[in-house]
Amino acid sequence: MIKALLATAALLLATPALAAPDRIAATRDKALKDDVAWDIVEGLTTEIGQRLAGTEAEARARDWAVAKLKALGFANVHVEPFQMDVWRRGEGSAEVISPFSQKLILAALGTSPATPPEGITAEVVGFPSLAALEAVPDGALKGKIAFVWHRMVPTQDGSGYGPFGDVRRKGPALASRKGAVAIVIRSAGTDYHRNPHVGATDFGTATPIPAAALALPDSDQLERILKRGKPVTLHLLLTPHVTPNGTSGNVVAEVPGRDPNAGVILIGGHLDSWDLGTGAIDDGAGVAIMTAAAKQIMDASRPLHTIRVVWFGAEEEGGYGGDAYGACHKAEKHYLTGESDFGADNVWKVDTRVLDPKAPAIVALKEALLPLGIEPGANKAHGGEDVGPIAKIAGVPIIDMRQNGLRYFDIHHTPDDTLDKIDPAQLRQNVAAWTTMLAVAAESTEVLGPVAGDAN
Amino acid sequence: MIKALLATAALLLATPALAAPDRIAATRDKALKDDVAWDIVEGLTTEIGQRLAGTEAEARARDWAVAKLKALGFANVHVEPFQMDVWRRGEGSAEVISPFSQKLILAALGTSPATPPEGITAEVVGFPSLAALEAVPDGALKGKIAFVWHRMVPTQDGSGYGPFGDVRRKGPALASRKGAVAIVIRSAGTDYHRNPHVGATDFGTATPIPAAALALPDSDQLERILKRGKPVTLHLLLTPHVTPNGTSGNVVAEVPGRDPNAGVILIGGHLDSWDLGTGAIDDGAGVAIMTAAAKQIMDASRPLHTIRVVWFGAEEEGGYGGDAYGACHKAEKHYLTGESDFGADNVWKVDTRVLDPKAPAIVALKEALLPLGIEPGANKAHGGEDVGPIAKIAGVPIIDMRQNGLRYFDIHHTPDDTLDKIDPAQLRQNVAAWTTMLAVAAESTEVLGPVAGDAN
Repeated sequence: MIKALLATAALLLATPALAAPDRIAATRDKALKDDVAWDIVEGLTTEIGQRLAGTEAEARARDWAVAKLKALGFANVHVEPFQMDVWRRGEGSAEVISPFSQKLILAALGTSPATPPEGITAEVVGFPSLAALEAVPDGALKGKIAFVWHRMVPTQDGSGYGPFGDVRRKGPALASRKGAVAIVIRSAGTDYHRNPHVGATDFGTATPIPAAALALPDSDQLERILKRGKPVTLHLLLTPHVTPNGTSGNVVAEVPGRDPNAGVILIGGHLDSWDLGTGAIDDGAGVAIMTAAAKQIMDASRPLHTIRVVWFGAEEEGGYGGDAYGACHKAEKHYLTGESDFGADNVWKVDTRVLDPKAPAIVALKEALLPLGIEPGANKAHGGEDVGPIAKIAGVPIIDMRQNGLRYFDIHHTPDDTLDKIDPAQLRQNVAAWTTMLAVAAESTEVLGPVAGDAN
Repeated sequence: MIKALLATAALLLATPALAAPDRIAATRDKALKDDVAWDIVEGLTTEIGQRLAGTEAEARARDWAVAKLKALGFANVHVEPFQMDVWRRGEGSAEVISPFSQKLILAALGTSPATPPEGITAEVVGFPSLAALEAVPDGALKGKIAFVWHRMVPTQDGSGYGPFGDVRRKGPALASRKGAVAIVIRSAGTDYHRNPHVGATDFGTATPIPAAALALPDSDQLERILKRGKPVTLHLLLTPHVTPNGTSGNVVAEVPGRDPNAGVILIGGHLDSWDLGTGAIDDGAGVAIMTAAAKQIMDASRPLHTIRVVWFGAEEEGGYGGDAYGACHKAEKHYLTGESDFGADNVWKVDTRVLDPKAPAIVALKEALLPLGIEPGANKAHGGEDVGPIAKIAGVPIIDMRQNGLRYFDIHHTPDDTLDKIDPAQLRQNVAAWTTMLAVAAESTEVLGPVAGDAN
């Protein structure tokens, strides 16, 4: 009898706690009626608008976030500031001087230096790909403006952003090494509007040169002009400037857990945006989705794990907020993490990065997501710029809710990133997906990590 | 016997000539393989780009047109110049000062005067419609900026452009009468991109005030901000200017007919464009379609009627080219006319304005168009700004090939009016439609007019 009791007790101890499936389902389905996410992204994009990292607009957005998170009932709402050099766009214009005089629409890439005040007038040398640019000898483009007209097509998983985004990330440094005085690229985008897709570029050890992205119709136009076979002269004027020692910061809010030693569940998105749109899909939607999901759990009952929602600062300029969080919180116990930073269209797949993808909590999560149309994915989640650093430092398990990316690179980093691009029904499906994750994970005592390997 | 012969001769005289159906069909189907229209619109938009009426760009476009039309083998290629005051856009910017500081994207309406150099800073008063603006007493908007946020949805026949376009055409004059210092309107468009839809406005006897169109996402943003209920202050800067006594002109080319007394068949589109895009759908496509159709006939055999193709100047600013043509050519015999100025998407219906819509030539035309998917329409064709004046003056019969307008007002008068918006297959269907019209009409001796009534 005592032996039997002991065995039962051992079994109880050995079986990790898990929320009941009907309770998970009820929490998930309630989240499909969520209005908090829309309220947040509508408010943030309307009352603040663009939120370029380190600027006064991003500071106003932090104030807005603190007030909103407090009003929603979150605990421990505070800002964790950090310093950064602040890049501002200024003006950007381009004009074909010959053979066919006309203006082209473009915008400077983040970190691009300015042209001289009178601009740069030089011959254009075109390349169909980054590889073609790489193939010319160092110094071969002395005095020229390089132009890379690589193409990119929509993909559901956004995988094209790796190779084609590299034209933006690496092209300017490469053109500098080849001797170019400036570079213009076909935007890393998939739309056909007169809206350039901006984003950061990294000069590494190369000498920075003015670098800009053409709207896709303008890139096609310049390509057609070049293919007429006559020398093409372009006038380029960019006036970005950098102010050192600006302030950005992460806005932190919590749903306190019943067990302070259970480990924090960290979820978030980024508060900053590029400056041409109002940062609706990138990433107003992300902070809205995550905050709404945490609020759903808060309203249901006090969770076992503390849920921490972070609206990260300065993601776009190179993941400053994620790095600052990792450095500040690396000693703290994190149970699980995930971020939302790929728009607001439906989640279609869930990836994990956990010790055992067949663990009951993970199986329960995948089953609870099926009614939302979310298929089980692989155990290769990677997080992103925001939660990636802490995940990498501390081996924190990761959940990725993979969103449909077919529209994402039509809008990403353009002036067109505005509220009207968000479908409220799909936004709610995102909230329900993350609420489901929290409903499972916030009551789970199963050991999911640490996980090894590069989480980015 | 002699009586019988005379009767036969009378019948031969009384039965108008008509091309054989198989020949019409062969000419039509060959036109479905046309490459001339694409070559023209690709060349014009690439080598010239925007062609604002009366500017040096429009002059270069006329030179380009003359060279192209001569190269294609047209006869009597020449320019018929006329004078006009030339409006140029300058810069345009807007910023919400309070309660939520942010920039908005807009562009001046054609004929808008400039703001003072320092801009205008004033409170915004919003109206959901032109009728709501009309309802306030004269002088009620003293010192204010009026804002009309009327909506517009896509329609196949473009009919929404009447009432919703009136907000642009008449709203500024009305706001001026109400005492407003400026007006901003939601663009008369159906897309959701950060591209304002410009176009001409008519102040009539009202005092001109600065007038601009907001991109649709920006109009929605301003509407949301206003609906927060706090006073909204907007800073508006517009710098258009007018140069008197500029030159525009119509470019004329002909396929000479066998019978100089048979009457001219006049077809055309307009060469000028608004300045933000490259005038691909409005109206590079139109001149390309009409020229290609005439070229198809030229290459088949010498027609009975002379076919005259006109690339009209300065349509956008108020139909200057059409008026100039009407004044210059009113004494000349015109057999039939039509214009193409509604993009490059498929023709879906043919309307006529002829004495007898059941005349054999018209029946033959409608039958020959059926294989292109073009349904027979009503006898209420109206032409347009270009051929409308001569049609009205001289009672010239009209053919309208009604194009699918569901996409048209996404692009119309925006920076997005670029070559990529043209589908080559649909462009060819347009060429085939007009080639069919010419194949029928150019051999017809049937009396189709004069037609009475206002052709516009």
